[in-house]
Amino acid sequence: MTVTRPLLLDLYQLTMAQSYFALGMNDCAVFELFVRSLPRNRGFLVAAGLAQALEYLEGLRFGSADLDFLASLDLFSPEFLKCLGTFRFSGSVHAMPEGTPFFAQEPILRVTAPILEAQLVESRILNTVHFQTVIASKAARCALAAGGRQLVDFGLRRAHEADAGLCAARAAYVGGFHATATVEAGQRFGIPLSGTMAHSFIEAQAREEEAFRNFAATYRGAATLLIDTYDTERAARRVAELVHELRKAGSSRHIRAVRIDSGDLARECRAVRHILDSLGCQDIQIVVSGGLDEYAIEDLVRNAVPVDAFGVGTALDVSADAPALDMAYKLQEYAGKARRKRSPGKATWPGVKQVFRERGAQRQIMRDEVALAEEAVAGEGLLVEVMRDGRSVRPPPALAQIRARCLSELSALPPQVRELGEGVGSVPVRISDALRALAAQLDAEVG
Amino acid sequence: MTVTRPLLLDLYQLTMAQSYFALGMNDCAVFELFVRSLPRNRGFLVAAGLAQALEYLEGLRFGSADLDFLASLDLFSPEFLKCLGTFRFSGSVHAMPEGTPFFAQEPILRVTAPILEAQLVESRILNTVHFQTVIASKAARCALAAGGRQLVDFGLRRAHEADAGLCAARAAYVGGFHATATVEAGQRFGIPLSGTMAHSFIEAQAREEEAFRNFAATYRGAATLLIDTYDTERAARRVAELVHELRKAGSSRHIRAVRIDSGDLARECRAVRHILDSLGCQDIQIVVSGGLDEYAIEDLVRNAVPVDAFGVGTALDVSADAPALDMAYKLQEYAGKARRKRSPGKATWPGVKQVFRERGAQRQIMRDEVALAEEAVAGEGLLVEVMRDGRSVRPPPALAQIRARCLSELSALPPQVRELGEGVGSVPVRISDALRALAAQLDAEVG
Repeated sequence: MTVTRPLLLDLYQLTMAQSYFALGMNDCAVFELFVRSLPRNRGFLVAAGLAQALEYLEGLRFGSADLDFLASLDLFSPEFLKCLGTFRFSGSVHAMPEGTPFFAQEPILRVTAPILEAQLVESRILNTVHFQTVIASKAARCALAAGGRQLVDFGLRRAHEADAGLCAARAAYVGGFHATATVEAGQRFGIPLSGTMAHSFIEAQAREEEAFRNFAATYRGAATLLIDTYDTERAARRVAELVHELRKAGSSRHIRAVRIDSGDLARECRAVRHILDSLGCQDIQIVVSGGLDEYAIEDLVRNAVPVDAFGVGTALDVSADAPALDMAYKLQEYAGKARRKRSPGKATWPGVKQVFRERGAQRQIMRDEVALAEEAVAGEGLLVEVMRDGRSVRPPPALAQIRARCLSELSALPPQVRELGEGVGSVPVRISDALRALAAQLDAEVG
Repeated sequence: MTVTRPLLLDLYQLTMAQSYFALGMNDCAVFELFVRSLPRNRGFLVAAGLAQALEYLEGLRFGSADLDFLASLDLFSPEFLKCLGTFRFSGSVHAMPEGTPFFAQEPILRVTAPILEAQLVESRILNTVHFQTVIASKAARCALAAGGRQLVDFGLRRAHEADAGLCAARAAYVGGFHATATVEAGQRFGIPLSGTMAHSFIEAQAREEEAFRNFAATYRGAATLLIDTYDTERAARRVAELVHELRKAGSSRHIRAVRIDSGDLARECRAVRHILDSLGCQDIQIVVSGGLDEYAIEDLVRNAVPVDAFGVGTALDVSADAPALDMAYKLQEYAGKARRKRSPGKATWPGVKQVFRERGAQRQIMRDEVALAEEAVAGEGLLVEVMRDGRSVRPPPALAQIRARCLSELSALPPQVRELGEGVGSVPVRISDALRALAAQLDAEVG
């Protein structure tokens, strides 16, 4: 992850770079990253992954093994490879801070650099910002649904390979999760870790109650016991017995919670809560998991099902209903002149832009305006300079601060925009008159 | 990717391992990896990712920084951390060769090792085998749809972070793709690379025909020109002019193809083919891209639209219709005794199993039987030993060989199982009588 992988790009980035190099095209280009349209039933997205994009830009170097491989392709001139050998990203970046909610057609990141550089970094910047934005957006929906109950990322096993497992934990935390089961995310990002036990631990032992006792006895801390391996309610009674046994023995080992991972979760939670309460275990929490998404969470919360924490796996880590966004990184200006892609269904708003956000009472987000950066428009400009001359202009904010920002901004969304399903509202995004005029002017010119 | 990341696991793998260590539970466990059910409208899946799983098992070590981090969590005893410090995976692995089609409830990989070891590797084995299996399965569907036409992976930018981009290229190649745009996949895996040009290259230059001429002049090889930036048919005529210009000049630079990335692809391809043919450019190929999936490919092929190659991005690299499989890694035997998970909807078939495949004429796959490994069942046993005492038993097969195996096996699927949509057929998978009897016996015993 922290190792920059220079050849993690599309071949055409390199062949186009070679053309720019050979043609002597080294004027300044401006590319902007944005999402063309929101996924179905979504009122907003949450920007994330900026820290990793900046790390990439600062660290990007082509090593001799990379250059040797490229030479072997018989596609690149020795002069161009020599140029790559001294490559450093020297441009500037403006971006929305991580954790900012945003909408369709709004640039969330802008790269300004000689065109060779700005083009070369397209694939990897998209790759990392897209993914974390996908996951932070999904996580934020779970956070809205959970209404303050604990959310834990359980999704490493179904995440798309190693880096996705790691970065999903980060983005989920940004979006409002409280913890992750992925240990490397604790190591790399300082995210709180949380874990329970697996069915195999129960099955490997002759009797369930023995497995519970053994786990509690060897767990250094407060254990969560998994109770749905055979018969959930019977297991809940066994846990209650064990809690009393440990209390009576004055043992320092204790049990924090039970986990239910299958069956009719609402029914099981109510039955288990009743059993635990009636056996004097009011302090034992209930964790649920197993195929949860924001809709299942909302359903449990709305029905006041006694759940203290949700473990969310697959639906979060692959963002099952929207595993990809229609995110693009497009040239908006070259050599001081605005540019516009006009392909059917994929036309872009040209020029160097800014997103201006207007707020109402309690900082509620009222409307956004996408305008030329130089325009004087009311509202807060969301894109701020984060890199200049290839160096970050300030240390990245702490992850906890990004998360707090995200949660605060989520509560500033109009209530109907925070809805999860059909009928979700939207924040109006205006395209400025000057921007429309510029687009029309370019359409008339180019061809 | 090749660096083993020891803390890329779920916290509970470590806390359970500590319990096994403290309890002295070090008998041999057998875990099997399988998919509970196929995604909607799918008749088969394709196993992939074994090579990366074996690399992980061979290379897994906990370094001092890892142990220091774990110590900081205040969850682990010094004795257990010392044990982790000398951890080596010492078990054996049986698996279906990569590229093998398989079905629900069939184990595709089996780990046999002391329970601490076999449990500890769960998350990462699932993480890597799951992802490549997801992508190889999606790629195979594209290959079936494309009917031999070229398929190129364009999906890095929307893949879920760096490793997914890299491994998607590998798995897509296994499933029948011909090339990838992801350069690192060429470097790491020797996959053929392919690339075109981006709209920005056109837009950065004053006139489209100038951009075409400049690209062809600076491209070392046969270029593919992108023709949908402004007006696709006009651009096709410009390409034809340039082809003649280069021919007349006897230039060594030449143009291989045009790419269309938007609009009504069927209509545009036909119009462009007609223009190119009528202008003496019968040898210029047409590449299409832009939101393609197996259904769009099938549609173009069925309607005999003149397409030579498909660039497939998002739908492939996130497997948009099925971004995750219901894949699990479950304890099937411990200390010589079969084990069974009985949770509602998640019950497993216990014991050490083998998948026996029966074939008909032309090696057509007729039916599979999931049986105990020790049973004498007709057919070819699909799980073969690939690792013994923690070491691979043979060098991994070449990727081209895995791909060839996959394509040959796809053609051995019954035609209705190769269908893409609703009404797709299935290969019957029988559960052996002995296996059913064992499950019933365990249900009667355990509780």
